[in-house]
Amino acid sequence: MIKGTFIDEISHDIPHQNWGTGEWDQDFALMKSIGIEFVILIRCGYKKWITYPSGVLKGEMKAFEPSEDLVRLFLNLSEKHGMGFYFGLYDSGEFWTHRDYEKETAINLKVIDEVWAAYGKFPAFKGWYISHEVNVCNEGMINLYKKLGKHCKKISEGQQVIISPYINGIKNVSQYTEKTAKTKSITLKEQEENWRTIFEQIHGAIDVVAFQDGHVAYEELEHFMRIHKKLSDEHDIECWTNIETFDRDMPIKFLPIKWEKMRMKLEAAEKANIQKAITFEFSHFMSPQSAYGQAGHLFNRYKEYLEEKTG
Amino acid sequence: MIKGTFIDEISHDIPHQNWGTGEWDQDFALMKSIGIEFVILIRCGYKKWITYPSGVLKGEMKAFEPSEDLVRLFLNLSEKHGMGFYFGLYDSGEFWTHRDYEKETAINLKVIDEVWAAYGKFPAFKGWYISHEVNVCNEGMINLYKKLGKHCKKISEGQQVIISPYINGIKNVSQYTEKTAKTKSITLKEQEENWRTIFEQIHGAIDVVAFQDGHVAYEELEHFMRIHKKLSDEHDIECWTNIETFDRDMPIKFLPIKWEKMRMKLEAAEKANIQKAITFEFSHFMSPQSAYGQAGHLFNRYKEYLEEKTG
Amino acid sequence: MIKGTFIDEISHDIPHQNWGTGEWDQDFALMKSIGIEFVILIRCGYKKWITYPSGVLKGEMKAFEPSEDLVRLFLNLSEKHGMGFYFGLYDSGEFWTHRDYEKETAINLKVIDEVWAAYGKFPAFKGWYISHEVNVCNEGMINLYKKLGKHCKKISEGQQVIISPYINGIKNVSQYTEKTAKTKSITLKEQEENWRTIFEQIHGAIDVVAFQDGHVAYEELEHFMRIHKKLSDEHDIECWTNIETFDRDMPIKFLPIKWEKMRMKLEAAEKANIQKAITFEFSHFMSPQSAYGQAGHLFNRYKEYLEEKTG
Repeated sequence: MIKGTFIDEISHDIPHQNWGTGEWDQDFALMKSIGIEFVILIRCGYKKWITYPSGVLKGEMKAFEPSEDLVRLFLNLSEKHGMGFYFGLYDSGEFWTHRDYEKETAINLKVIDEVWAAYGKFPAFKGWYISHEVNVCNEGMINLYKKLGKHCKKISEGQQVIISPYINGIKNVSQYTEKTAKTKSITLKEQEENWRTIFEQIHGAIDVVAFQDGHVAYEELEHFMRIHKKLSDEHDIECWTNIETFDRDMPIKFLPIKWEKMRMKLEAAEKANIQKAITFEFSHFMSPQSAYGQAGHLFNRYKEYLEEKTG
Repeated sequence: MIKGTFIDEISHDIPHQNWGTGEWDQDFALMKSIGIEFVILIRCGYKKWITYPSGVLKGEMKAFEPSEDLVRLFLNLSEKHGMGFYFGLYDSGEFWTHRDYEKETAINLKVIDEVWAAYGKFPAFKGWYISHEVNVCNEGMINLYKKLGKHCKKISEGQQVIISPYINGIKNVSQYTEKTAKTKSITLKEQEENWRTIFEQIHGAIDVVAFQDGHVAYEELEHFMRIHKKLSDEHDIECWTNIETFDRDMPIKFLPIKWEKMRMKLEAAEKANIQKAITFEFSHFMSPQSAYGQAGHLFNRYKEYLEEKTG
Repeated sequence: MIKGTFIDEISHDIPHQNWGTGEWDQDFALMKSIGIEFVILIRCGYKKWITYPSGVLKGEMKAFEPSEDLVRLFLNLSEKHGMGFYFGLYDSGEFWTHRDYEKETAINLKVIDEVWAAYGKFPAFKGWYISHEVNVCNEGMINLYKKLGKHCKKISEGQQVIISPYINGIKNVSQYTEKTAKTKSITLKEQEENWRTIFEQIHGAIDVVAFQDGHVAYEELEHFMRIHKKLSDEHDIECWTNIETFDRDMPIKFLPIKWEKMRMKLEAAEKANIQKAITFEFSHFMSPQSAYGQAGHLFNRYKEYLEEKTG
């Protein structure tokens, strides 16, 4: 059921594994072996850290020269393994944070042009990911989604654009704090009203919405998913789920999720009639190569589950 | 000296390893190889998460259907490896927290009946563990211990009942906070007075007390242990020690303990004439299979120590 | 470029790996294989934990008897592998914290005498490390540096004395808090003024200063390094850099650093004309043996970089 995975380069908060080309090549093969068909670069850059030698970002954001062109690497590996690649837009960590949505949009429009010119002809290039995560949209955010999504689609002759919002649930707390939960969550009714408003405005600019599944209690998840599915269907947007494979309930932030929790989230999606899942993310939390030993066991448990489901 | 280990399923705070039957089988063999004779399921359930398909807990607590019957698995593995199994009671994470000791007792009385009916005939079933940890008892807690302990013993024709309290020492701080120590600790005198009162009331309902050894400074430990041993002897309760094999002094909460600290705690117990130790817990913190590489080295250091002691 | 590594025994805050002699032997070989020529014992003791059976510290500080003489072990392994050993002084965790610099000095003068008498004839004994880290010196600290440095040099006929201060930069936050950065940093001008004053007083007592490189933003680092280099040159002090190989920007405190960050710090040192680097530290954060799998990959990336540089 998991058809795609994020690749968490550049990471905000997950310690880097320091893989070279060999490890990445092997990881794409491992992804493929459990049915993963595409990867999504979570973001092409964050603040001064970038994944490809971007003239735009080095010039305008004083970004650091990267050691390696990861966009090229991932495109080549995607092609080699018969997989697709989605490109995640730039997060300035600055304009977005300070609600200067116009500047965040402007720099990204240039990034899109630059990237499409440099990499658009790679056969694995299948689409775009707007890396800006939201739980409730204001007008500035909606405009950013609309402008960036439309520009991506226009320049690439209609390639798919994905977003992955989160739910402002009880587990929407900072990964840097001591807490794992808060007391107040958005209600189902509020979620439905918010996202109906948003979808009315952004449909056409984005093709796929894959809500993150880790911010609500396990027993609430299916109910939220049903709303997401219903609203997406109403607005001709594909509804996937973004299954988080790290555990939000533990003091160490973050290690791989307990298999049983993952299974419940997969089953909740199935009950809500959501057919396609992507995960954040395979390489740290599900890969037998992960520095976290729990990940390899999660891989095995998921594989057994797949075999059981498919007979 | 370590004769038993907890199995931390369902865990509050230790990330899950995602082991399947094969890994558990191997882990029981590893436990056995260093002299471990029995396992203690830390709790059969916590909130909605349960280790066996309990009609009681699915019905009354809306517990989630578990993927696997871990109680059955652990009983079978215990039998296979010639080890004993102790069953840990249910922690609602709700009644206990809100001091509704009667409800916590009531649900557990039903769990005990259900479990004994389902698993009482397994030859490895050797006793019970009351999973509710205390540092000072009030009347409600004492009644819970008495009622649950007596019911366990009655239904199982006198099988052993274990508790594992903690000391309200300087390291009794939440695993979710930034702190590793606080300034005020219970005194030796207070500890003695509290536990004399408690033991007077609960002896007969519980057979074994195994205080957790990780909440006080290393140099204080032996003194607390001597009090525990003396009070236990006075009340015909067996006194074991629960040696924690994770490190409470580090910012990452928690990884395996430094061997030297473990050795000091074993030696403190020996000096206090405590003969038997259990540990929290083997599979994350001492097993060569653990996702934490430090654990395998701890296993080797402990093994060398055993060989040195026994010649 | 990395010529030395700390050995983090006794550790404040990095979980112990529980290595025995075999693992340490292998680690020295691994260090050697990437050009590391010497090790620096970060401290010989912290509070009651000590690395060698010190009569002074057992007597005056009630230190615990250590399981093993790590000073002897590391001296022997250094000799075996053709490497040098620097001895780190004692950190009482008490006098220093409470600004009683005279008591901290006094106990260390005795430690120096004791250690030189016991280990001074080991051929690998190459020098001293004053383990007390500062970012700005007051008179008490300066006197400690002067007295301890001079005593080390006198007793050992001029062996090298190293210090490793930190910069009070934006990332100078406790490893026990939720934060990874603060808003106010020392300025370049303040740094220069402070350290000119300090170097004027301590030159002659210390030979090498190796500032920690992890407390400032990556783009600021070179500027601070240039000041350190200039001031060191002015005062006839060798200027090295202490490259931190753990990542200060992540919620898990701490795992190995991202290779790209490490490379940038190495290049900043090169641009500032600093020739020699030591690291904190190899065994947890760069060793293929480390319990942190990211470390072995960092080792490989660093090795590739070395091969590229040296052709």
